[in-house]
Amino acid sequence: MDYDIMVLNGGSSSGKTGIARCMQSILPQPWLVLGVDTFLQLLPARIQGDPDGIQFLSSGEIRIGSQYRKVHAAWRQGVAAMARAGARILLDDVFLRSVANQRQWQITLHGLHILWVGVHCEAAIAEGRELARGDHMIGMARIQTALVHHDVHYDLNVDTTHTEALACAQQIAAILNNSPTLATP
Amino acid sequence: MDYDIMVLNGGSSSGKTGIARCMQSILPQPWLVLGVDTFLQLLPARIQGDPDGIQFLSSGEIRIGSQYRKVHAAWRQGVAAMARAGARILLDDVFLRSVANQRQWQITLHGLHILWVGVHCEAAIAEGRELARGDHMIGMARIQTALVHHDVHYDLNVDTTHTEALACAQQIAAILNNSPTLATP
Amino acid sequence: MDYDIMVLNGGSSSGKTGIARCMQSILPQPWLVLGVDTFLQLLPARIQGDPDGIQFLSSGEIRIGSQYRKVHAAWRQGVAAMARAGARILLDDVFLRSVANQRQWQITLHGLHILWVGVHCEAAIAEGRELARGDHMIGMARIQTALVHHDVHYDLNVDTTHTEALACAQQIAAILNNSPTLATP
Amino acid sequence: MDYDIMVLNGGSSSGKTGIARCMQSILPQPWLVLGVDTFLQLLPARIQGDPDGIQFLSSGEIRIGSQYRKVHAAWRQGVAAMARAGARILLDDVFLRSVANQRQWQITLHGLHILWVGVHCEAAIAEGRELARGDHMIGMARIQTALVHHDVHYDLNVDTTHTEALACAQQIAAILNNSPTLATP
Repeated sequence: MDYDIMVLNGGSSSGKTGIARCMQSILPQPWLVLGVDTFLQLLPARIQGDPDGIQFLSSGEIRIGSQYRKVHAAWRQGVAAMARAGARILLDDVFLRSVANQRQWQITLHGLHILWVGVHCEAAIAEGRELARGDHMIGMARIQTALVHHDVHYDLNVDTTHTEALACAQQIAAILNNSPTLATP
Repeated sequence: MDYDIMVLNGGSSSGKTGIARCMQSILPQPWLVLGVDTFLQLLPARIQGDPDGIQFLSSGEIRIGSQYRKVHAAWRQGVAAMARAGARILLDDVFLRSVANQRQWQITLHGLHILWVGVHCEAAIAEGRELARGDHMIGMARIQTALVHHDVHYDLNVDTTHTEALACAQQIAAILNNSPTLATP
Repeated sequence: MDYDIMVLNGGSSSGKTGIARCMQSILPQPWLVLGVDTFLQLLPARIQGDPDGIQFLSSGEIRIGSQYRKVHAAWRQGVAAMARAGARILLDDVFLRSVANQRQWQITLHGLHILWVGVHCEAAIAEGRELARGDHMIGMARIQTALVHHDVHYDLNVDTTHTEALACAQQIAAILNNSPTLATP
Repeated sequence: MDYDIMVLNGGSSSGKTGIARCMQSILPQPWLVLGVDTFLQLLPARIQGDPDGIQFLSSGEIRIGSQYRKVHAAWRQGVAAMARAGARILLDDVFLRSVANQRQWQITLHGLHILWVGVHCEAAIAEGRELARGDHMIGMARIQTALVHHDVHYDLNVDTTHTEALACAQQIAAILNNSPTLATP
């Protein structure tokens, strides 16, 4: 099976980005990694902390407002258009509203071949990795771990609790039809 | 006049990104900054240095291969789709092939209201700012200064040689139809 | 005159780091840039926001507690020891308590040849450059502009309001005794 | 036993920095993380690629010249002085010349209580984590894995192959005399 886009959904510090970077390395074709971090960088600085934008609360909770939602809808259209124009996309996302976010992407990506991948990690392990990053913001890993997967349908699940990012990437790559030609890393 | 997308073209260290960030700050609506740096981050690491990808030569010259071109064409479609879906876009680009790149964007952005802005800076000043960044790669500012503007048509030109990024941003903002409602920075 | 250490004091967004990077580029010997940003990276993440540590208030004000002060005193001893061991140091600092900070450094750096450089920039220009960085934290430039220079003695003053970082670096380099051998950038 | 400095030695991508950041989080007192990455940021950009400076070869090998060595000796004196002035130091290092580097630090840190920690990771796992970072430079993990530990004496060894950074940090913290008062992360 040939896919146009792979959607990796998981909580903060679950290891999505590491898996995506490994996928880029082992897949023979160029895949583009687009993620929630990419999107945040595009926005005006003032949108962070604005109730209409996005608020990162000290509890680790994230609140999203109407302006953020509107711009994110346009971003989704852009991602879909890149895939339709032939770019292979590795989408690294955090479904804060779980299945509601999956439905949004299903509508936007209509007609494309999507591989839905759930990236799991035990909360205690994800929290430890959050500490190891040395970021000032702590708490998102714990809150998001279970939340983002609720009722979401996946073609494949990987778990980084005891499995390295590269090994998870290889599990995902194995179900792509071009897996026999995978470059060895 | 209401614009969907503003294209800021200029050489490395000419000050495009600083202007774009100031625009985001002074314009009342959220504008997304998308640039060549955004695009480079999406690509597999191995594409840098690959003849089919993108090569940054020690002379400051940049060489682009077929694989890079294909993926960039898809990226352009994505940018256009975001604008068509209602996101306001500040495109921060370096037209290494000058008017040929402008034509590519004109085709891709067909039907959208585009403001073409040339961002100029004297070569010696751009080179000094390149040193001030402390990057390991030196030489792009000098090579790109004149090259990227050759035969390119602009609606507006700004020059950062003696003008601050914020003042350039205000010059650009002044010709948008919503300028009377500009927030004071 | 041969200096062991050059201290560049100026408010946030006044251009100290750009000048220091240019100095590194034009001076024939290797100089080390050490600054307040270097120091902040060494600290535990939790020290930011802690009353005993360092607090960046939304007003742009910075508050410093006892734990931060103790660790910073040890940091100053480290910087002095590097200089005494033969490393040439470009110290990029923000004297939040102006002349009191200068006295601390004078004591710590006792016996070393110090060049004191005041880095000035008009508040409105520094504020514009703060916007151009696109940081989430705004307001430090305005507050610090005059504050950090109060009663501080300098051997040399530079002003980035209308002068590029490289030109300021050249003004500073001109008074070093090895200036005849300056590499052309 | 109370330590002034903990030296974490391990190859690239072995997980030293993650352990150090976790140590900062779980230890009640502020510890400063100083590492080879901190040092590299202080240097003039041109020192990278210079035979007298430091060269990162495409094979993953690193070559160090006389100028780099002189400046690094001054850096070591600075680190020692910070520790003597009361700062607790987590030194994150890569002993490219293994026991010869340990002897340099032993001389410089004379009289201080040092905890020597070997940070190990199987080469294949470290290589996978190198890919997961998405850096352009690949190969250092493989070359350095065994090399940096040759004949080096440790008080404690940790292995990140199957153990998380936080768990390794807890193993190290357990042998500090203040471990009963460890904050729970």
